[in-house]
Amino acid sequence: MPLVQVSLLKGKPQKNISAIGDSVHQALVEEFKIPELDKFQVVREVEKNHLVYPPSYMDIPHTENIVYIQITAREGRTVDIKKRLYQKIATLIHERTGISTDDVFIVLTEVKAENWSFGRGLAQLADKT
Amino acid sequence: MPLVQVSLLKGKPQKNISAIGDSVHQALVEEFKIPELDKFQVVREVEKNHLVYPPSYMDIPHTENIVYIQITAREGRTVDIKKRLYQKIATLIHERTGISTDDVFIVLTEVKAENWSFGRGLAQLADKT
Amino acid sequence: MPLVQVSLLKGKPQKNISAIGDSVHQALVEEFKIPELDKFQVVREVEKNHLVYPPSYMDIPHTENIVYIQITAREGRTVDIKKRLYQKIATLIHERTGISTDDVFIVLTEVKAENWSFGRGLAQLADKT
Repeated sequence: MPLVQVSLLKGKPQKNISAIGDSVHQALVEEFKIPELDKFQVVREVEKNHLVYPPSYMDIPHTENIVYIQITAREGRTVDIKKRLYQKIATLIHERTGISTDDVFIVLTEVKAENWSFGRGLAQLADKT
Repeated sequence: MPLVQVSLLKGKPQKNISAIGDSVHQALVEEFKIPELDKFQVVREVEKNHLVYPPSYMDIPHTENIVYIQITAREGRTVDIKKRLYQKIATLIHERTGISTDDVFIVLTEVKAENWSFGRGLAQLADKT
Repeated sequence: MPLVQVSLLKGKPQKNISAIGDSVHQALVEEFKIPELDKFQVVREVEKNHLVYPPSYMDIPHTENIVYIQITAREGRTVDIKKRLYQKIATLIHERTGISTDDVFIVLTEVKAENWSFGRGLAQLADKT
């Protein structure tokens, strides 16, 4: 159910790009309890002057390795579960790519169960709430 | 009012890309009752390794023809209207492009009426709720 | 905290692209009272046939200079503050680039405080609401 969009600077190693997507997915499986097969993602490599970030914000420094992770998911997870999700995403990305956890930026957009169609024009989650 | 974002694999026929946008728009006009002229869309063609999808999810198989349709719209449609929207989008895309309805993935993000500006710095829908 | 996505036609002057991002940011600082350093943006230049807009909608004409500005921000601003934001964004973009305010399209998606992680896997705003 989640749709994950990853934006990062163009030219990074392709294995890092896959590892980022896989890390986000594993964290969603483990913390949001989504099914293993529920993996829908779009990656965007962005030109240098098209990716804007501050050198530091809230005492966290950022570099050109910064990764924007936009997750659209069904609403309803608790604050604690969300916190565990962010922690796991950042940790897994760091372990698998060397990217600092400082450079993992995440925003979660929550939408209603009936706002999804996974194909066939059906609203598969509409009657599951 | 809706802003529609379409992501699909790079290299598909341009007439399919137009047909997908037109299909989404027609479905929005007919089911969400948006004005004919209210057509704001961005299409993104994505490299093969940047478009991630499962071979199958919830018994629906997916292929490299998969299309991600992200619709941001004003909140307030009923579940039934949303269901009709998805059905019509998938049907129209299939009829016009041959893409299987299985490969039509839709997510709807709803925002408040006052969250739109169609130009001139005005919040045109703010006082219409 | 906001994540700003700007989409516009490919090939426009690079100084305009920077000016658009800077204008949105200044308006967010002045009207939404975000910190000066809280500047996270992604720009997307789009092929001509991938950017769809009506010649006119709600009596506002549009040209190929149209700019789609998608702002994801923490929920909770009043309608009046949002109106001031749109006004300032459109005005600043016009002053700095010559783009007509008619061609400034804005949509704001609001998410909960705990839906953000600015790095380190922390939900920095979760306990600040």
